[in-house]
Amino acid sequence: MTDPYREAGVDYDVLDAAKRDALTAAATTLGNLDALGGRPVGDTLGEPAFVFQVDDLVLAVVLECLGTKSVLAREYEEATGLDRFADIAYDTVAAIANDLCCVGALPFVINAYFATGSADFYSGGRGQSLVSGWKRGCEDAGAAWGGGESPTLAGLIAESDVELAGSAVGRVPAGARPVLGDALAQGDAIVLLASTGLHANGASLARRVAADLPDGLRTKLPSGRELGDALLVPAPMYVPVVAELARRGIEVSYMSHITGHGLRKLMRARRDLSYEIDRLPDVPEVLSFLVDAVDLDPSAAYGTFNMGAGFAIFCPEPAASAVVEAAGAVGIDAMVAGRVRPGPRAVHVAPVDVTFSGEQLELR
Amino acid sequence: MTDPYREAGVDYDVLDAAKRDALTAAATTLGNLDALGGRPVGDTLGEPAFVFQVDDLVLAVVLECLGTKSVLAREYEEATGLDRFADIAYDTVAAIANDLCCVGALPFVINAYFATGSADFYSGGRGQSLVSGWKRGCEDAGAAWGGGESPTLAGLIAESDVELAGSAVGRVPAGARPVLGDALAQGDAIVLLASTGLHANGASLARRVAADLPDGLRTKLPSGRELGDALLVPAPMYVPVVAELARRGIEVSYMSHITGHGLRKLMRARRDLSYEIDRLPDVPEVLSFLVDAVDLDPSAAYGTFNMGAGFAIFCPEPAASAVVEAAGAVGIDAMVAGRVRPGPRAVHVAPVDVTFSGEQLELR
Repeated sequence: MTDPYREAGVDYDVLDAAKRDALTAAATTLGNLDALGGRPVGDTLGEPAFVFQVDDLVLAVVLECLGTKSVLAREYEEATGLDRFADIAYDTVAAIANDLCCVGALPFVINAYFATGSADFYSGGRGQSLVSGWKRGCEDAGAAWGGGESPTLAGLIAESDVELAGSAVGRVPAGARPVLGDALAQGDAIVLLASTGLHANGASLARRVAADLPDGLRTKLPSGRELGDALLVPAPMYVPVVAELARRGIEVSYMSHITGHGLRKLMRARRDLSYEIDRLPDVPEVLSFLVDAVDLDPSAAYGTFNMGAGFAIFCPEPAASAVVEAAGAVGIDAMVAGRVRPGPRAVHVAPVDVTFSGEQLELR
Repeated sequence: MTDPYREAGVDYDVLDAAKRDALTAAATTLGNLDALGGRPVGDTLGEPAFVFQVDDLVLAVVLECLGTKSVLAREYEEATGLDRFADIAYDTVAAIANDLCCVGALPFVINAYFATGSADFYSGGRGQSLVSGWKRGCEDAGAAWGGGESPTLAGLIAESDVELAGSAVGRVPAGARPVLGDALAQGDAIVLLASTGLHANGASLARRVAADLPDGLRTKLPSGRELGDALLVPAPMYVPVVAELARRGIEVSYMSHITGHGLRKLMRARRDLSYEIDRLPDVPEVLSFLVDAVDLDPSAAYGTFNMGAGFAIFCPEPAASAVVEAAGAVGIDAMVAGRVRPGPRAVHVAPVDVTFSGEQLELR
């Protein structure tokens, strides 16, 4: 499979090696939790959120960034005058909170990191837009905004841009259990939740595509919508789905936030299991456009983008329709899209005849 | 007072306005803690750490960055071949954990954010250096390293540099109380803990100074040490002092991590109180050098740099010597340096005849 990210300058091999070094070192420090009455829960280093326990309280922490989508927002503002910084702030909160809720935790507090190369960035209302989008994200995630940091890092960050990231701490709701994948079993249903488009991954590639088009980000999609406008639609907040599952007492066996690596993320659990997808959601127009523009084959497309599936919930088959219903109750379209099968670790996306083998997802 | 930061391109007025907007919005979200069984403790938005409570557990969260000191490390490596990235990673952990412990909390988990403009940054051992320094920082802070994020943000971050930041979640130890300043009173002693040099603030200014020197970062200080070497000495970890105070049952009334704004940070508590400093610690050689190089008067020097005092602990007068002893027991030099007096809000640094009025520290 060609790797469109590598062509766009992102070398996952080097990054993954650095990440593995970091996780090896991090693992040696976990005993430090003990002095304050804490202990690790499961083996969550390198998972979407780190989970630990204090007394009966199961806590989860995450630190996440938006990537380069903020550059898209600045370029689109230059092209059109439209300020979409509220949307990318919301998107950052979604990236953070959607990772956190994968382990069954809901956020208490989300902190913001807005870094720029020049304080001039904040003139002209962008600061207020970021603030309003971050606040809306926290409200939709059910979290308190606990502050954060807004440094000016001259020489380190591009002067006209802002870098967005943040952190969250949350808890597994009382009465619920952390979702760490140990209950994942053959026969489980795979429920896919609808995406809204690019989400936080793929912005580098999207910028490269736009740069090659005569009308750039103002290129019209078949629907008439502008490419830049569609790219900047924020991700949905999936946290309310997880909250609703807890409220209804529906137990699930695993959850995966589908970001970089596309549907390869369906085999995120380190288990000898196969994942058979026999139905696929509609592909958002903006993703179809990007796939066509870069001429990605189905393997590259479904191994790179979410292709309409932003979050996966794995659950015992009898619970599948209840999961779909719970998602619908909070406004998220969902479908039972496949089944967990006996190993080896692989994802088979039958409708497009694509198979990803286990070694195509080395995240740690 | 002239503001050397402004001359170095950092406009605190614009930043502080953006920060105030953010805090106003954040304050409206705090009710969201309730749904998960949490509640705010005190009024800590905009304080060094946000504090909230779940059942009997008092938690604190912080998100902090190193600033541009990583650029200094890269420049020094270019000039000398010496890899000091472990030191700046340690420094980042210190910046985070020293903020967290101001409220009396000790860290459970610290997460890392290493962002660069090109994955090539990690070739040649820098990745391993960052990992080793971060790990050492977590060990000295008594924290578990819970993972983090290491994105490549092409076009957003300088290609040859790395941006370091991170987040922490901690707790106030069982049996201790959060330190929020409400007990701060006239007559309290002010104990200053020794700094090691620049710490995480002032790197932009230091780079500007170095750029104007014929030998740049290799300029010899009077001791013979190179400027770059001295600038890159990491901050001490003050967390063990706070842990030792809790262990010994010594109650303090306020703590302030002295970073940007120098000794103006002594009046961080939003109280009508004056702070009289009648003794000062030795000034680290590298700070004296910077002060001379930029020709800062004492007001600018003590209002910008820590000038030898990296952390302040306020406590009832009878406890002052016990605080000094507790710091010494974990290897941190400390001195009783002054007293809290009746208002108005101001800091008087008698040995250098400098007074900072309340409006010279508008942090929120």
